[in-house]
Amino acid sequence: MNELTINLKNHSKIPLYEQIYDYIKSNIQTGRIPYGEKLPSTRALSKHLEVSRSTVELAYEQLLSEGYIESAPYRGFFVAQIDELYHLERGQEKLRIYKEEKKKYRYDFTPNGVDLNSFPYNVWRKLSKDILIDDKTELFRSGDPQGEYGFRNAISNYLYQARGVNCSPEQIVIGAGSDYILMLLSMILGLEHRIAFEDPTYKQAYRLVKGLSYPTVTVSVDRFGMKVSELEESEADIAYVTPSHQYPTGIVMPIRRRMELLKWAYQKEGRYIIEDDYDSEFRYKGKPIPALQGYDVQGKVIYLGTFSKSIAPAIRLSYMVLPESLMEAYHTQASFVNSTVSKVDQQIVQKFIEDGYYERHLNKTRALYKNRHDVLIEALRPMEDICKISGENAGVHLLLTFENGMTEEELISRAYEQDIRVYGMSDYCIKEEQGRKPTILLGYANLSEQDIREAVKLLNQCWR
Amino acid sequence: MNELTINLKNHSKIPLYEQIYDYIKSNIQTGRIPYGEKLPSTRALSKHLEVSRSTVELAYEQLLSEGYIESAPYRGFFVAQIDELYHLERGQEKLRIYKEEKKKYRYDFTPNGVDLNSFPYNVWRKLSKDILIDDKTELFRSGDPQGEYGFRNAISNYLYQARGVNCSPEQIVIGAGSDYILMLLSMILGLEHRIAFEDPTYKQAYRLVKGLSYPTVTVSVDRFGMKVSELEESEADIAYVTPSHQYPTGIVMPIRRRMELLKWAYQKEGRYIIEDDYDSEFRYKGKPIPALQGYDVQGKVIYLGTFSKSIAPAIRLSYMVLPESLMEAYHTQASFVNSTVSKVDQQIVQKFIEDGYYERHLNKTRALYKNRHDVLIEALRPMEDICKISGENAGVHLLLTFENGMTEEELISRAYEQDIRVYGMSDYCIKEEQGRKPTILLGYANLSEQDIREAVKLLNQCWR
Repeated sequence: MNELTINLKNHSKIPLYEQIYDYIKSNIQTGRIPYGEKLPSTRALSKHLEVSRSTVELAYEQLLSEGYIESAPYRGFFVAQIDELYHLERGQEKLRIYKEEKKKYRYDFTPNGVDLNSFPYNVWRKLSKDILIDDKTELFRSGDPQGEYGFRNAISNYLYQARGVNCSPEQIVIGAGSDYILMLLSMILGLEHRIAFEDPTYKQAYRLVKGLSYPTVTVSVDRFGMKVSELEESEADIAYVTPSHQYPTGIVMPIRRRMELLKWAYQKEGRYIIEDDYDSEFRYKGKPIPALQGYDVQGKVIYLGTFSKSIAPAIRLSYMVLPESLMEAYHTQASFVNSTVSKVDQQIVQKFIEDGYYERHLNKTRALYKNRHDVLIEALRPMEDICKISGENAGVHLLLTFENGMTEEELISRAYEQDIRVYGMSDYCIKEEQGRKPTILLGYANLSEQDIREAVKLLNQCWR
Repeated sequence: MNELTINLKNHSKIPLYEQIYDYIKSNIQTGRIPYGEKLPSTRALSKHLEVSRSTVELAYEQLLSEGYIESAPYRGFFVAQIDELYHLERGQEKLRIYKEEKKKYRYDFTPNGVDLNSFPYNVWRKLSKDILIDDKTELFRSGDPQGEYGFRNAISNYLYQARGVNCSPEQIVIGAGSDYILMLLSMILGLEHRIAFEDPTYKQAYRLVKGLSYPTVTVSVDRFGMKVSELEESEADIAYVTPSHQYPTGIVMPIRRRMELLKWAYQKEGRYIIEDDYDSEFRYKGKPIPALQGYDVQGKVIYLGTFSKSIAPAIRLSYMVLPESLMEAYHTQASFVNSTVSKVDQQIVQKFIEDGYYERHLNKTRALYKNRHDVLIEALRPMEDICKISGENAGVHLLLTFENGMTEEELISRAYEQDIRVYGMSDYCIKEEQGRKPTILLGYANLSEQDIREAVKLLNQCWR
């Protein structure tokens, strides 16, 4: 080939070299310039196109680095041999749209609600600003995979005072949300375990653990929490429990059951308890129930905590407290994994805790939720003849167990007709127990007192 | 038991009910109040202690909810039976300290450096402030597990323009760092795969994939990148590659090899290519090399990208582009996993891209790195008799291959004596190839031009 006539646009936004490159490349791709063909020399082409030689050189260099042409010393540039795969047309298959249409309900008793009107936006903005105020390059350098030490220290102090958790900052690993923390934990524990879940349980954790390919078993719950006798008969060596406030039944595991559970873990090497302390902050009567971790003397409890529930769902900040017995496994198997939480966010939450904002925020939301809780209990009083209320005094939802002949689905669909969303216990059950009584969860964190009163009035009508 | 004499402190910060609760609880724990013992009635105890009856009731309720005591209707409160595990003393084992002492070098040629002096702190602060300025409760509600749509849209536009990646926002999944993205990807792909890595490779990904329990194989690299002939003989069905800029050799995979690789993936159901496009932004000559994903017509390429390298390491923001063929698996197996990136961070980076700051920042750092690159090349010229330079024109490091008789360890330790840190190729090799020539990596992103000149002068002396 001696000539390449390219219609160059001098006033285009695309540089000349790129126009030459594009022209040659597309002609090679379509086969118009075939394999083996010699390209004009850079001198000849620059003369022909009336551009500088360096422009053509730049175009050829780009074609060279992408492998469209090859250079042979002293002989020039030749089109390289390339398979023809890209001649295939891209399939025009339409993407399936997975977006569920989310119905907006007038009243939504979601058990996962968080009141965001009480979120301290001003404080958050101020802390965020203060932290970014200096041009601290340090803040944008990669951080400690475990989370920043100062932040872990703040968490360890908070946990000791508020939850009776005994740990040093060295045992804490920070991560972006509880799902991620479980993924990381699986790298520490390895996959050679069978994990027991309470039934009913926090399905998100259950699904995640299944998704990580763990074999699982379910253990039923009596009025003291997970049945340890049943756990012993299962082949599980890890028990996932929510002792401070069983999810979703709200059962507080009494000290005796806790000791039985610890005893189970102590009986065999390699057994562990995962204590998910997801919403222990919200208790309206007396002191918080101390964490199981605080009673553990043999390093068998892995404690999970989160700020997503107590500050805001969008704050992707959870953590685990590893027992000393797992620290070595963490360091050999998972400490190379980079942190998932930005240092900026870690510093904001650290300041939030250290300067007392967290405690104030907890007190404020606790008072708020307690009022809503009390309003809900009061509003439900006229329904005491058709259902039993349980799960009170803690968390952000109540349970109503019915004996009025209606099924859960019926209760839910009747509420739906009134534009009210309520949640059935079946959403939380792994196995469906024969003869389980229809049970509805009512979360109240995200509803005003007025809304609670109005909605319950409607429920009381439609559930009769 | 008729009396409990508790030395109550009226002016203590600890509420009276809590003092009563603490006293009884610790006496039950130590066995001084034995199992089965009846506690005084609330009336009797309140009279005895001269406190209100509700104070005692509160203490008893707390003991009840923690399970230390039980109430028998009409008979009163009794100490519950509890195993004695907690009498065991907590082991006083000292925590092993895992903190490595990090030596600070005068000059550190880390290949993972990022210049943070050019980070646009003011812009970042402003964007962050703007986003937090309104009390948007929406911002703190839990977000889309896949990442916010607007942000994914901005990424999809950027990828199309800058990297030739063809995708819709529906195919993008955001996550807090590339390690996490690989964890999530493993939930989509399942563990029934064998993954092939280039050797040498990006060890972090290799370790992570090993940590997730995948079987792996290594495939050697020739001057065109991963050898597809060797890949075909391995039993791998997933190939992890860095075609735009092989890490760490800097090889740009030519179009022919890319086509061979795609052909390999097309030959069998279930084969995939993971394209890690980690630092494609940094290319100093000509246009960026388009991503392999853009050539794929059968949905076999999983594209990985990150902002940690191009903005700042502490920005925990990476993403993957799933081929349409994996979207269903994502939706059934992993879309329930909550996002690991806060909405605030997503919005900041979205604005950063949409308002043109990202492009400006890339241009600025590209120019900066190019200068450092040129200064390093220039400074290395007097060493051309003892080593061969490669990997130029892209990335943020060069490779020096030696034939002066010194081993890699020797080269590294001689540099160490001059307080200079350099990196050996062996850190990136999975298998050590017999007869591989000693190779040193010099990263220049994080060194000033002055430092580069000074350090290379010292290296030229100590390596002779």
